[in-house]
Amino acid sequence: MIYCDIGNTSVDVYREGKRTKWRVDDFDPASLEGSVHYVSVNGAFNERLQGYSNWHDMREYVRWENYYPTMGMDRIMACEAVDDGVIVDAGSAITVDVVKEGRYQGGFISLGLRAAQEAYARLSPALDVSFNFEVDLTIMAKNTPDALTVGFLAPLIHEIERLGKPIYVTGGDARRISLFLEGSVVDEALIFKGMKKLIEKG
Amino acid sequence: MIYCDIGNTSVDVYREGKRTKWRVDDFDPASLEGSVHYVSVNGAFNERLQGYSNWHDMREYVRWENYYPTMGMDRIMACEAVDDGVIVDAGSAITVDVVKEGRYQGGFISLGLRAAQEAYARLSPALDVSFNFEVDLTIMAKNTPDALTVGFLAPLIHEIERLGKPIYVTGGDARRISLFLEGSVVDEALIFKGMKKLIEKG
Repeated sequence: MIYCDIGNTSVDVYREGKRTKWRVDDFDPASLEGSVHYVSVNGAFNERLQGYSNWHDMREYVRWENYYPTMGMDRIMACEAVDDGVIVDAGSAITVDVVKEGRYQGGFISLGLRAAQEAYARLSPALDVSFNFEVDLTIMAKNTPDALTVGFLAPLIHEIERLGKPIYVTGGDARRISLFLEGSVVDEALIFKGMKKLIEKG
Repeated sequence: MIYCDIGNTSVDVYREGKRTKWRVDDFDPASLEGSVHYVSVNGAFNERLQGYSNWHDMREYVRWENYYPTMGMDRIMACEAVDDGVIVDAGSAITVDVVKEGRYQGGFISLGLRAAQEAYARLSPALDVSFNFEVDLTIMAKNTPDALTVGFLAPLIHEIERLGKPIYVTGGDARRISLFLEGSVVDEALIFKGMKKLIEKG
């Protein structure tokens, strides 16, 4: 069984516990033989998949009464992987979702680390500085890099902590974000685990 | 006495309790006669002020041991207006600062409402939606506009509330933000009050 997570810029392929990542433009769907299950947030790529009968959209497996129609399929799969907990997917956006007793409770979408830094930089040359990931979020800032880092991260981290435990973190910035979330579990394959679990349920 | 708050796009003039707002490009410093005290975050405008001996930069009045050198003068003035409390200046950025017994404790900088919405829109066409300011921040979102609004506002509002009371809100989005901050006081002249207070101290 092959699993694929298709984003706007990359295709993440998961096969027998091994991941390979491709740039969307470099990836050819014909290169994968056998049954492929995929989630996609990339409309243009979905059109390229027309005619590949071995590619199966995970949308068909979702119990939609639990989710909302415009919710990203990657988010839904990460939620499906967890029975109880808070799921943080830290990518270009940071999605935060809550599942209780196997049922989706709702969530929110924050900007990703890069998007936030770029948005600050656009406001003023004075705010075009890198985040300081060594910062102590419990202390009020007294310089610009700390003021931006605390301004973006402290509200987000504290809000995630309010939602309860356990906290699962996935996505490209998972390790960076999880350092601020005590006791959180980094699981880079959460989306694929959700896909697998949902297919097994049938 | 005339007070001026010079931003990147506008000049806010405060005279005898009355405010007039100008676009930076339309404003002529020669149009103000008599003593003018100003704060500015606009380097280009500061150069235009060279040679106007009636224009006085508030930087000279600041006790810098309390603040940090790159801190915006508008933020410092809003802090000077308050002896104890949390000061929220909701403009193109949202600055949050804490003053205790007349002494600055530190703060942080969040994106402004417009900057945040624009940053979401840049991430994906699916996230190019307006915030829903009617949203209940205590409920997890189950649609995209609410997920973005809660994602941006709930962490920020809860973080501000953690910092204590009273909460003073100023800036262009003061009313919008203060609706979420129970018991907060909107004071659109906070920066000018700080300037006046600092000048009177000498």
